[in-house]
Amino acid sequence: MPVTQADIDLAHRLADAAGTAIRPYFRSAHGVELKADHSPVTRADREAEAVMRKLIEAERSGDGIVGEEYGIKDGVTARQWVLDPIDGTRSFTVGRAIFGTLIALVEDGWPVLGVIDQPIQRERWVGIAGRPTTFNGAPIRTRACPAVAGAILATTSPHLFADDDVPHYLGLVAAVSGGHARQGPVYGGDCYNYGLLASGHLDIVCESGLQLYDYAALVPVVEGAGGRMCDWNGDPLTATSAGHVLAIGDPARTDDVLEALHGTTEIHDR
Amino acid sequence: MPVTQADIDLAHRLADAAGTAIRPYFRSAHGVELKADHSPVTRADREAEAVMRKLIEAERSGDGIVGEEYGIKDGVTARQWVLDPIDGTRSFTVGRAIFGTLIALVEDGWPVLGVIDQPIQRERWVGIAGRPTTFNGAPIRTRACPAVAGAILATTSPHLFADDDVPHYLGLVAAVSGGHARQGPVYGGDCYNYGLLASGHLDIVCESGLQLYDYAALVPVVEGAGGRMCDWNGDPLTATSAGHVLAIGDPARTDDVLEALHGTTEIHDR
Repeated sequence: MPVTQADIDLAHRLADAAGTAIRPYFRSAHGVELKADHSPVTRADREAEAVMRKLIEAERSGDGIVGEEYGIKDGVTARQWVLDPIDGTRSFTVGRAIFGTLIALVEDGWPVLGVIDQPIQRERWVGIAGRPTTFNGAPIRTRACPAVAGAILATTSPHLFADDDVPHYLGLVAAVSGGHARQGPVYGGDCYNYGLLASGHLDIVCESGLQLYDYAALVPVVEGAGGRMCDWNGDPLTATSAGHVLAIGDPARTDDVLEALHGTTEIHDR
Repeated sequence: MPVTQADIDLAHRLADAAGTAIRPYFRSAHGVELKADHSPVTRADREAEAVMRKLIEAERSGDGIVGEEYGIKDGVTARQWVLDPIDGTRSFTVGRAIFGTLIALVEDGWPVLGVIDQPIQRERWVGIAGRPTTFNGAPIRTRACPAVAGAILATTSPHLFADDDVPHYLGLVAAVSGGHARQGPVYGGDCYNYGLLASGHLDIVCESGLQLYDYAALVPVVEGAGGRMCDWNGDPLTATSAGHVLAIGDPARTDDVLEALHGTTEIHDR
């Protein structure tokens, strides 16, 4: 069934509730601890997911839930709510307000509604399949990108690419920067980069190792603003994608971006 | 002569004036152009520096001025005002409110007053030699760091290190992260990282290629909060330092950080 106003209202209330849970912990010395896998995670993360799950269970008891913190709850409908309470835990931990709460409604495996919410700066991107993406309620568009050379590329950290991915990534870096370090990628930012791309402030985001809960919400936001989300082969992202994610603000540059990603490997193979 | 209340008041008015000049250009499509050296720079940058220079020339006509945009004006006193209207032009360009206006008062070559101002989030760090650093008026302290392993390291971009610097930098990355990518450095952030270090949210900032106008303001902010600023040999930063900058929140970790930076080279030399 199509996305309803009730769905949209619920998504806003989920984001509101998560923000209320998160804000007291931002720059609070009590917020940080370490998980066994060394990724920083906070009480804010868990409390925000818990409050969102509670709302969904109360109002949509049949829907499935996939959360970064509390895992999968199977549903009986074709719908899943996919939640990442704090995407960008490193930014949160160091006190940078460029992390985000991600909320996606996935229907038959396809994200039809996505929210990127920045609760400190009170910024909210909302994407809905077939409708223009909004930023704090106003419609936004990605920008035109006449060439990959000179495009602004963003990614969270070069250390997050697996060894096999590095030559591909560096091929794209070379293509955008032309060897000028200060024209190189913009680092940090996590989901916030996709919001900025949707708003027309940057051109390309390239990442690997992403999980469904990292990118489900991003797809409707980017595509509803006129951009394209795909994997590193140009194929649509699905729940079983290997986590190689591209966001391209100007879809006319898709082939050029893919060529830059894969050209480097051919050079290395010679 | 020591820093006076009039100096502090002027520094605040400079930051206020720069913020007023900058804010209309943030996320404005008109804000971006390219300089010949491919670093993005904005009308905001030039207008903010111009308005600060005008205030200084009106009120302190004998003082020197060093600005990122409009260069050096020699003075007749022992004092120089060192200005970087937008440190973090890439962040500004892509719409991230983690850039900063840097204002330093340098006396006999030594920075005695420093301001890091974030005009969108309205955040201001003020450091004065011999006094506690403040954040939006409240005193702040760096945090204790029991060991380099597990410390949070920040730097703007790995691409900004010269080739000879890379093994040193990677030695420090290995020491903090223990090989866990998600415990690796936090990227992006420019001057904002030094403010967050002063506030106790991160432990180490390591950069190279910095100019006097990039770091003069940072020294009083970091040191007034209990941290240490030095070059990669542990020596004090001076106007003639080669741009290798370290900020260490817990001075007790200085030797460990220097060892991590230089140990890697010894391994490579074997």
